[in-house]
Amino acid sequence: MSRVQDVYPDDGISLREVGLRDGLQLVKKFPSTAVKQRWIREEYAAGVRYFEVGSFLPAKTFPQFADVRDIVKTITELPGAHGVALALNERGVNEALASGIAEIASVVSATEEHSQANAHRSRESAIANVKRLCELRDASSHKPVVNAGISMALGCSIVGPVDPNEVIRIAEKLYEVGVDMVAVADTVGYAGPKQVGELTRAVVRIAGSKPVCVHLHDTRGMGIANASAALDAGARVLDGSLGGLGGCPFAPGATGNVVFEDLVFLCESKGFATGIDIERLVAVRAILRAEMSGEALYGGLARAGLPRGTSAKAA
Amino acid sequence: MSRVQDVYPDDGISLREVGLRDGLQLVKKFPSTAVKQRWIREEYAAGVRYFEVGSFLPAKTFPQFADVRDIVKTITELPGAHGVALALNERGVNEALASGIAEIASVVSATEEHSQANAHRSRESAIANVKRLCELRDASSHKPVVNAGISMALGCSIVGPVDPNEVIRIAEKLYEVGVDMVAVADTVGYAGPKQVGELTRAVVRIAGSKPVCVHLHDTRGMGIANASAALDAGARVLDGSLGGLGGCPFAPGATGNVVFEDLVFLCESKGFATGIDIERLVAVRAILRAEMSGEALYGGLARAGLPRGTSAKAA
Repeated sequence: MSRVQDVYPDDGISLREVGLRDGLQLVKKFPSTAVKQRWIREEYAAGVRYFEVGSFLPAKTFPQFADVRDIVKTITELPGAHGVALALNERGVNEALASGIAEIASVVSATEEHSQANAHRSRESAIANVKRLCELRDASSHKPVVNAGISMALGCSIVGPVDPNEVIRIAEKLYEVGVDMVAVADTVGYAGPKQVGELTRAVVRIAGSKPVCVHLHDTRGMGIANASAALDAGARVLDGSLGGLGGCPFAPGATGNVVFEDLVFLCESKGFATGIDIERLVAVRAILRAEMSGEALYGGLARAGLPRGTSAKAA
Repeated sequence: MSRVQDVYPDDGISLREVGLRDGLQLVKKFPSTAVKQRWIREEYAAGVRYFEVGSFLPAKTFPQFADVRDIVKTITELPGAHGVALALNERGVNEALASGIAEIASVVSATEEHSQANAHRSRESAIANVKRLCELRDASSHKPVVNAGISMALGCSIVGPVDPNEVIRIAEKLYEVGVDMVAVADTVGYAGPKQVGELTRAVVRIAGSKPVCVHLHDTRGMGIANASAALDAGARVLDGSLGGLGGCPFAPGATGNVVFEDLVFLCESKGFATGIDIERLVAVRAILRAEMSGEALYGGLARAGLPRGTSAKAA
């Protein structure tokens, strides 16, 4: 078994809290390092083990991630916790490697138009960037997991519908250049469950024994339905954020990631043991409410609680 | 082809706006008759054809439905529109028949405990009540569709988990006594998509050529995922309410029905033509905002709009 299956066991489900990165990507007011640490520790106590912790991007542009090294350290100190950080160029990758982070994430846009507009580079150049990341990983001492997200994989804010064959082609190339995991991202929440299921199934086929992550946004209320379809199609790594934190730069007023608490409930209801105590997880929202009072929080479990007759751990 | 398949074609999808009944069941401030009529007419203009319009319950207890006869008349005047009203006893059924409503709905609780607590009668007595409704339908001149909902079919606010075999047994009895359609209801939003899919599949099998309705609440954020599972399992009639209007008497603070606009988007994304213009439908929310300002409205489409590259009609 290769390392990535140790991190993301293929006989179970891995749910990743991305609120500390994707959720904070656009916020004006962001929590202090101490608050982020409390957020992580309380979620860890609730059973969460996977955390996207920040980006190795210029702190001038993204001050919310200036403390990423401290947050990596916090994660590293929690037994069994796994941290992920975004790094989009060689400088960032080297910083990420130096931080000791367990997983480095990169991104390729599904469409040329979005790649040029958002990253000012071609998709081929972005893939070459991922290849370089894999080489740096191989040359490193601790060899972190490398994950490459395909943004706009299910619909593009610039061109609209996206040809799934393009996404499959990119996924193939990414596995070819050595990534441990591809993350199929519905960045702007365009898809319904049929589309998510079909694309996930195709990427799972390509991935072979490697895991496939599906990263969904709840922009049009399809997030949980899409997550359900992704699970049915064989995805075993799913992203979400506490309270659905996170806006979308391409859809003003849109909600962010799939609500993590509801995602846990969904997985448990489908028979996937998450190891997460939903009631303890919901309680962590108090931190966000107190520290980021301007951000809307979403979620059904937080409103209604667990159904009668379900224990706190098994929804 | 019997009458019910004329109303609910089995080669397509029928989406029912239940906001005017289920959505108003618990509200303190309710819209005037004129506002209800505007709500219906604007949704009709957007393509909606199925409306649950109210209850034939004592107007003293449910003043929000005192104008049910006027609303039935409004629906009857719209070509191709189909109205549904709730009637829970013989007096109500006779009033419903006299109103000329096209469909009469009754309810049986899935659990004895809930039946006794909520309706102060046994489930057997409730089924006998449905049988009487079918006899009165048969003796009537216009022979409305009879639909029997099984409330708490996917979880009970009193006893918790519900044995699906009990629900299947009740559904069998209901079809036996002559109902045209059974509506499986997740009244308190306890279920996930696996459970919804399995129960729907079983009831569809029993129903034979008759339609099966699935009535879902979004209490724990699973509404759209559950609707997707119900469609996959063969349900062709689904309920929702504009903006997810409607609380739940058994779960304070819980949201109501599945958001109608998001349900339309889901169906279109799965290849089911709904005939509904989502943008026109979303625009009708202005009526609810203006007239029922105390009620929270939900929904992704209303927040984010249609994805780029989709026409207003085909999501």
